[in-house]
Amino acid sequence: MVKVGIVGGTGYTGVELLRLLAQHEDSEVVAITSRAEAGRRLDELFPNLRGYYDLAFSEPDVDLLASCDVVFFATPHNVAMHLVPELLAAGTRVIDLSADYRIRDAELWSQWYGEPHASPELLADAVYGLPEINREQIAKAQLVACPGCYPTAIELGLIPLLESGLVEPSNIIASAASGTSGAGRQAKIDNLASEVSGSFKAYGVGGHRHLPEIEQCLSLLSGSDVSLTFVPHLLPMVRGIHATLFARLNKPGEQSIEDLQRLFENRYRDEPFVDVLPNGTFPQTRAVKGANHCQLSLMIPQQRDTVVVMSTIDNLVKGASGQAVQNMNIMLGLPEDRGLRQVGLLP
Amino acid sequence: MVKVGIVGGTGYTGVELLRLLAQHEDSEVVAITSRAEAGRRLDELFPNLRGYYDLAFSEPDVDLLASCDVVFFATPHNVAMHLVPELLAAGTRVIDLSADYRIRDAELWSQWYGEPHASPELLADAVYGLPEINREQIAKAQLVACPGCYPTAIELGLIPLLESGLVEPSNIIASAASGTSGAGRQAKIDNLASEVSGSFKAYGVGGHRHLPEIEQCLSLLSGSDVSLTFVPHLLPMVRGIHATLFARLNKPGEQSIEDLQRLFENRYRDEPFVDVLPNGTFPQTRAVKGANHCQLSLMIPQQRDTVVVMSTIDNLVKGASGQAVQNMNIMLGLPEDRGLRQVGLLP
Amino acid sequence: MVKVGIVGGTGYTGVELLRLLAQHEDSEVVAITSRAEAGRRLDELFPNLRGYYDLAFSEPDVDLLASCDVVFFATPHNVAMHLVPELLAAGTRVIDLSADYRIRDAELWSQWYGEPHASPELLADAVYGLPEINREQIAKAQLVACPGCYPTAIELGLIPLLESGLVEPSNIIASAASGTSGAGRQAKIDNLASEVSGSFKAYGVGGHRHLPEIEQCLSLLSGSDVSLTFVPHLLPMVRGIHATLFARLNKPGEQSIEDLQRLFENRYRDEPFVDVLPNGTFPQTRAVKGANHCQLSLMIPQQRDTVVVMSTIDNLVKGASGQAVQNMNIMLGLPEDRGLRQVGLLP
Amino acid sequence: MVKVGIVGGTGYTGVELLRLLAQHEDSEVVAITSRAEAGRRLDELFPNLRGYYDLAFSEPDVDLLASCDVVFFATPHNVAMHLVPELLAAGTRVIDLSADYRIRDAELWSQWYGEPHASPELLADAVYGLPEINREQIAKAQLVACPGCYPTAIELGLIPLLESGLVEPSNIIASAASGTSGAGRQAKIDNLASEVSGSFKAYGVGGHRHLPEIEQCLSLLSGSDVSLTFVPHLLPMVRGIHATLFARLNKPGEQSIEDLQRLFENRYRDEPFVDVLPNGTFPQTRAVKGANHCQLSLMIPQQRDTVVVMSTIDNLVKGASGQAVQNMNIMLGLPEDRGLRQVGLLP
Repeated sequence: MVKVGIVGGTGYTGVELLRLLAQHEDSEVVAITSRAEAGRRLDELFPNLRGYYDLAFSEPDVDLLASCDVVFFATPHNVAMHLVPELLAAGTRVIDLSADYRIRDAELWSQWYGEPHASPELLADAVYGLPEINREQIAKAQLVACPGCYPTAIELGLIPLLESGLVEPSNIIASAASGTSGAGRQAKIDNLASEVSGSFKAYGVGGHRHLPEIEQCLSLLSGSDVSLTFVPHLLPMVRGIHATLFARLNKPGEQSIEDLQRLFENRYRDEPFVDVLPNGTFPQTRAVKGANHCQLSLMIPQQRDTVVVMSTIDNLVKGASGQAVQNMNIMLGLPEDRGLRQVGLLP
Repeated sequence: MVKVGIVGGTGYTGVELLRLLAQHEDSEVVAITSRAEAGRRLDELFPNLRGYYDLAFSEPDVDLLASCDVVFFATPHNVAMHLVPELLAAGTRVIDLSADYRIRDAELWSQWYGEPHASPELLADAVYGLPEINREQIAKAQLVACPGCYPTAIELGLIPLLESGLVEPSNIIASAASGTSGAGRQAKIDNLASEVSGSFKAYGVGGHRHLPEIEQCLSLLSGSDVSLTFVPHLLPMVRGIHATLFARLNKPGEQSIEDLQRLFENRYRDEPFVDVLPNGTFPQTRAVKGANHCQLSLMIPQQRDTVVVMSTIDNLVKGASGQAVQNMNIMLGLPEDRGLRQVGLLP
Repeated sequence: MVKVGIVGGTGYTGVELLRLLAQHEDSEVVAITSRAEAGRRLDELFPNLRGYYDLAFSEPDVDLLASCDVVFFATPHNVAMHLVPELLAAGTRVIDLSADYRIRDAELWSQWYGEPHASPELLADAVYGLPEINREQIAKAQLVACPGCYPTAIELGLIPLLESGLVEPSNIIASAASGTSGAGRQAKIDNLASEVSGSFKAYGVGGHRHLPEIEQCLSLLSGSDVSLTFVPHLLPMVRGIHATLFARLNKPGEQSIEDLQRLFENRYRDEPFVDVLPNGTFPQTRAVKGANHCQLSLMIPQQRDTVVVMSTIDNLVKGASGQAVQNMNIMLGLPEDRGLRQVGLLP
Repeated sequence: MVKVGIVGGTGYTGVELLRLLAQHEDSEVVAITSRAEAGRRLDELFPNLRGYYDLAFSEPDVDLLASCDVVFFATPHNVAMHLVPELLAAGTRVIDLSADYRIRDAELWSQWYGEPHASPELLADAVYGLPEINREQIAKAQLVACPGCYPTAIELGLIPLLESGLVEPSNIIASAASGTSGAGRQAKIDNLASEVSGSFKAYGVGGHRHLPEIEQCLSLLSGSDVSLTFVPHLLPMVRGIHATLFARLNKPGEQSIEDLQRLFENRYRDEPFVDVLPNGTFPQTRAVKGANHCQLSLMIPQQRDTVVVMSTIDNLVKGASGQAVQNMNIMLGLPEDRGLRQVGLLP
């Protein structure tokens, strides 16, 4: 049994890790920390876990965490980067769900996160945990930085187009929308049900922190600088991300939609968690609610020069905790879908 | 491997059976019928099932169904009662999720369902599939009538009180509320998102078809006629039933809330799917979303003479397809929670 | 033009007052206070008001408020009771939307609100602002205590039954449900969209602060002690209260549903904002969304001995700010529906 | 008093016309037709109208309609085009909320709507009812074709950019999302609450019928062919459209966001129903819920070469019935905001 520790277990990615790991046959959660809730039983805070865990939150204790095989950080940014060096030194594997190790350039990180990086020396070794592009490095990694939720949906939707060089990298648009759980379990007026229900809005258009992460990933894949216009929106629902992606074909008319469909199907043929829908159908977030799948489809409206890709994930699963478990499975040589065969909750 | 057939697989209880059975190690769905969708792949209608089933809907075929070990009816009422006799004759076990065999009195059935019963001779042998009261009979049954969704929530909330004779059976009130999936996957204006979202209303107050079923079950348990005032309401959400139950204590003041709490905990101690919450907490439907659990709690407001029980289930799981699978497990001698260890999807 | 002041304008009852008063031809808002937002334009916080108000929040200033004809308190409890004496002394009329003057017994108030009342000498003169029972006193009052949201819905549903003595006052049940706006515009985890959406639960069963207010009002009307079992629930939607009320007929069989229907219709014939629906129909909260109406209907299920009343309001309108404006109109001799002819927003 | 007739009053644009006209001082609805509901009182179908109309639906009767001053068509497409000629001949003014007269080219109309146009001779005289570009022609028109809901939001967001020639007309992207009421009051499985709630998806990407209407309008304004990639999405909420628009600046770097802000503010300075929000804020659909306003804002993310405009309306008000009333007011020389001073219902 793999001994698992979780740092910061009172947020939504924390409870989601616990939900998934409750059905993971080869692992056992031995420690879950929270300064604020230390001493309180997990299932008091999260009654869906009743009967699955006989465990309470504990104060963060590096020794206990270091005794685990794997430690997940389900914390806001600026926590992991202080604790990770010690855990790595102790030989523990670390899977960070926060943003601390996603951006390779410490300078750029600081610019977007407003403070110096606390362990910049680890950035080069941290592996970006998107299995669809980095499976081999993840298998060998000691530190994996799980992608953000928007980045996961957007990158999976664009990878085949950018790898193949079929679209202009300098003019890509991502109009994406997220359920409210993406904003975390924090007491803010803007996230109240009375503020969010029955309404829809864009936010962060001036510069969302996921922008540099996405541009970094896509630029590496395409071999040239990708310039993305990224507009996130807030949906009146809890779970799910839908990204609608627009790219200009380099040679419109040369590729039919059938060609592109084939390109995507081939690219993702062996991926257990990326599912290219039949041409003409549209992904809906509910089909992947609670599931680790990304479902996507694509079109060339009016057979003009713009290709549209629609990509959906559950932001808490493939966009966070599910992908983290997928990374753990890869790192430990377990079957990649262990604990992740959850069928989407539809309706 | 248990060979499973499903009649009427295009509704919400059908897709929910498929979701649960996809994770049931000991069974395999070999036939799923639908006249309307015959020939169409399951996952075309229900994209959450992609990757889990390589199967299409088929025309109802009694021979094929009769070759199954178990057949589920996920149909509206008035379908099973015509087909079941033939399946039973062939030795197939039948689990009916519809109302056809829930009421033992054929006369009463006809009165509420507006037509004569087609196989009244089976009513005496059909076992009411609430494992918490009928586990042994279910284990031996060939025909199980799964309780309705409201009845499950209401009965589980009242069983300890009525069995113990602590409350007046003639004056019980159930104010219950259901998500929209309880109304089924049928094209009706009243169930449109534009009609239901952001609104709440009672319905069926004059007489909901679940009333006689509940009164029959509770009267048997209490040994005297139970008279229930039952008001269902429609919630602006998809899944979940919450029943708020009011009963008058026979001897107010003699029982403390602690006594009642102990009564409930003892009654359900060994039940894998009924969970009595600590006193002072309130069940919320999301804690059991997608799960087969009933969570409940109770209070005596102002220490007066009325006990209030709050009982929550997912109407599609413990209120329908999950309970059906639980019954199958019992009938076949499988572990009762096989395929049913789904943690509630919270948030 | 009536000069209006509003104390505490940053909550939902504050913005709702502003929405209604924007269409009130005879009044003008001259001051709206908020310590936290002083100096900020109203329409910056509430963009729906753009074009209707050229006004900013100001620090509370008793002189400015005292110069108004009417001052509304749209504050949490424990604010009005400190400021009102000074305003009354200055001759200003006060309409308090908070709980400070709803309960006549200062002892009882303190017991439920956890602190001594700051101006108990005013309790006897404060008029309970439910026009359907107190219209004449309201017209002469200088201080009106607007009823709570649940109390409004519940009292309007029970008044005809208790005034007429047709039901047992000692055994009344109110199972009520409210949209999230009833919890106010405060940053609390429990009220996050991610916590509330797609879920339903009871709360405050042990003792909600609206209980003594309702029992006081109904006991006065019935002439004997009313004992209410009150269970509030939280709905996954923003606006609306639905109360489902259960009372035992004193002489079951003597009154038909037609008799009760007539009783209700006669009682509310001249009420501009209480609407008894035709027998057999059910009120839905959306029909009164944004409107000052209470819509209600009633039944005697199975012609037994329990009468069920369903009563709906918009908690922010008839349950708070609309009723406050209605009271202002009455106090000032204006047409009672001035500013209140808003048709419910359906769909 | 203006005598108003409404053809097809049982849909959502019909009930919304009734809601708005209930507060319109200068008009009176004298006839509202519905074959399906003839004889039934309006307020039986739409209980929010109780107390406002003492009227029943009637069979369509051309003579009665012809006796009205104005007739609104709140019908699906393919109804108005058969009846309008007769009404115009009788001198009645017609405001068509359907698509029948929006596209000037009968050939193009047939291509998108799948049948020949029944009165193509009227297309040249029909005025496209977007007051912000056609106010003078509307004032003189006898037949006004109200824009679709998506077109209204999208066109208002793009007009200043295209009129000024600042962006490339050949590469414009509209990623828009609508509440469910846009799909109408029709019994379809896809629009059930259980299908739509808690989920989000794109649809109609291959070619939505609003595409040619938008391209026609914008091409006229820009003086060259506008090519639009239009992706509509379905929101889990009832009312509201949010359009997120992307256009490439012809001379990036030459215009600052302040220049564009000024351009928009100047263009809409005198428009009563278009509201340019302060730079840096984002429109939210709830701020215009129930209101006839369009609120919009714009940004140039990362100061690159793409301008993003966000535009919000209530699809049933400015996107349909409110705009229709606005057109009526203009046609009849009434104050343009008569009946339309509804403040958005926030929260």
